Amino acid sequence: MKRAHNFNAGPAALPLPVLERIREELLDYGGTGMSVMEMSHRSPEFEAINNAAEQNLRKLLAIPEDFAVIFVQGGGSLQFSMVPMNLTLPGKPVDVLHTGTWTAKAIGELQKGVRHNIAASTEGEKFIRVPRDEEIRHSPDASYTYFCTNNTIEGTQYHTIPASASPLVADMSSDIASRPLDVSKFGLIFAGAQKNLGPSGVTVVIVRKDLAERADKNLPTVLQYRTFIKEKSLYNTPPTMAVYVLDLVTEWMTAQGDLPGIQKRNEAKAKLLYDTLDASNGYYRCPVEKASRSLMNVVFRVAGGDEAIEKEFAKGAAAAGLVGTPGHRSVGGMRVSLYNAVGQDSVEALVGYMREFQRTRG
Amino acid sequence: MKRAHNFNAGPAALPLPVLERIREELLDYGGTGMSVMEMSHRSPEFEAINNAAEQNLRKLLAIPEDFAVIFVQGGGSLQFSMVPMNLTLPGKPVDVLHTGTWTAKAIGELQKGVRHNIAASTEGEKFIRVPRDEEIRHSPDASYTYFCTNNTIEGTQYHTIPASASPLVADMSSDIASRPLDVSKFGLIFAGAQKNLGPSGVTVVIVRKDLAERADKNLPTVLQYRTFIKEKSLYNTPPTMAVYVLDLVTEWMTAQGDLPGIQKRNEAKAKLLYDTLDASNGYYRCPVEKASRSLMNVVFRVAGGDEAIEKEFAKGAAAAGLVGTPGHRSVGGMRVSLYNAVGQDSVEALVGYMREFQRTRG
Repeated sequence: MKRAHNFNAGPAALPLPVLERIREELLDYGGTGMSVMEMSHRSPEFEAINNAAEQNLRKLLAIPEDFAVIFVQGGGSLQFSMVPMNLTLPGKPVDVLHTGTWTAKAIGELQKGVRHNIAASTEGEKFIRVPRDEEIRHSPDASYTYFCTNNTIEGTQYHTIPASASPLVADMSSDIASRPLDVSKFGLIFAGAQKNLGPSGVTVVIVRKDLAERADKNLPTVLQYRTFIKEKSLYNTPPTMAVYVLDLVTEWMTAQGDLPGIQKRNEAKAKLLYDTLDASNGYYRCPVEKASRSLMNVVFRVAGGDEAIEKEFAKGAAAAGLVGTPGHRSVGGMRVSLYNAVGQDSVEALVGYMREFQRTRG
Repeated sequence: MKRAHNFNAGPAALPLPVLERIREELLDYGGTGMSVMEMSHRSPEFEAINNAAEQNLRKLLAIPEDFAVIFVQGGGSLQFSMVPMNLTLPGKPVDVLHTGTWTAKAIGELQKGVRHNIAASTEGEKFIRVPRDEEIRHSPDASYTYFCTNNTIEGTQYHTIPASASPLVADMSSDIASRPLDVSKFGLIFAGAQKNLGPSGVTVVIVRKDLAERADKNLPTVLQYRTFIKEKSLYNTPPTMAVYVLDLVTEWMTAQGDLPGIQKRNEAKAKLLYDTLDASNGYYRCPVEKASRSLMNVVFRVAGGDEAIEKEFAKGAAAAGLVGTPGHRSVGGMRVSLYNAVGQDSVEALVGYMREFQRTRG
């Protein structure tokens, strides 16, 4: 068995020790004679897993007591609707900072009848950066301000939290737990687990408890945050396996040290790759403005965007055990994701391949 | 390692060969060097898994071409809202056959603003049976008729499909694929996978394609069945691990033979247990009318419903490796679930324990 260097954008690489632990426990979790997948979600064993996953996140992200941490289904795509359903106030618009494909999807759901205001957009610059604070035109009475901290497809990331008088709501799917975070500056954070936190099928929502009380009680029960808060994510059958892996991944992160340490490793990985791009005399070119470059998803073009050469690049990379380098089908080019579980060794293998590719093809 | 005899109501027992296969492939799926959980949902490998799961279900259940088979998140609890959102016609009520806790939950969601009619209810008899066709008072113009084919908590099951002029919508979470099924008699069937089909975290929906077109296009995108139909359940990131296990379980079922064969084994397991109850001179008593007895969930009381003795029964059973015998917390007593993956050997071990318990305590 040979493990790949996995640069997938999500679902993405998981830490090897986590996978080994899952394998070890697969037929018999903790002497129960059952897989986690076979246990009741109301068993003491699963309740312990569910609590541990929450506590790991609370400690890692230093989540204040007035915030709930809940696990829901449906991914970011359901959050695009659940957030406005739960958090809009009558007559008060939603402010949105528009930075690419994922905020476009969120806007698409708002367009179905929720008053909203595009408070900033970098669409005119093809999303090669995130907006600066002074460009944002907030509504005076916004229900909340919505943005996406890291744009997987465009390869951009906010490196400071935007200023806002209304509660900040962040799609943090692709950079949660990759760096220190001041949760108290937010009203709600959501993140599909399948990038930094675990497998697909579970979405972490961190929500200020008072905001969850804004929701109309006539909303469907499982589309109200308060249901999950009240029942500690056990109102209905949760995705038990996904929560279990989330628990193991957050436990692994805790053992890795604190978020400043994790950030340092992520910065080192990204620096190695961006330095390689920048030192290639334009053979590899990252279109993103330096101040907005993502530490999680590095996008670049090869040989001036020659699609045949880019195809060759990806094919050769895969043959060398470097998987997941093609860019999103909507934009083309290359994209390399460097989530927490991607090791420095993988990035070193990649830049070695890139230099060799340039030497022989460039 | 010793595997338990697993009578959990869901999440529930999975076939041992399925778990062994998951374990074997956990660090390296099909030579990719990745776990299934680490692969892109748009990779050819995962698309093949997704297609295979659908095709296995189509073959097993003989699903006609005019029905779509989709995989969604959120469990039955989300379906309680998604079904009326998508299938109600203006001014036309939803007919409901009320048979217990799960139809009560579905009715609770309808009470938030959907016109509905309780076309039949066995609440007056404490849900010890399902309604007979002649008791059902259909609306002349119902949008659809909703019922639950098997009631896990009450231990009842329909053994014939109720007559209805409007499309039948069934919560089949706890008995799908346990017996032959004429899908063409339904408009929509949904089932959380965590009983007969796999782990929690994925819900199978079988829907007549024309009915999916009833939905308002202004509904949230991921709450419209048509989105999943159009994108073959890959509109957004699916719960990849759960779909993979669903594929393996349906593959295992296919290898077991056809549904009549699976039904025969389920009938034999249930007969052994019900015969043991009926031969106990009332020490064990099943409250359910014989014609409505469930083959999937067998409920009974011990020693006239003496809670201390029932507690002792469950504790002794667990000590003997027979797990999951306590009834649902809302009703008490005992409940034993006999889904497809529960072997005849497990039922034999259980009835052996029951006879011995009665002999020494009765």
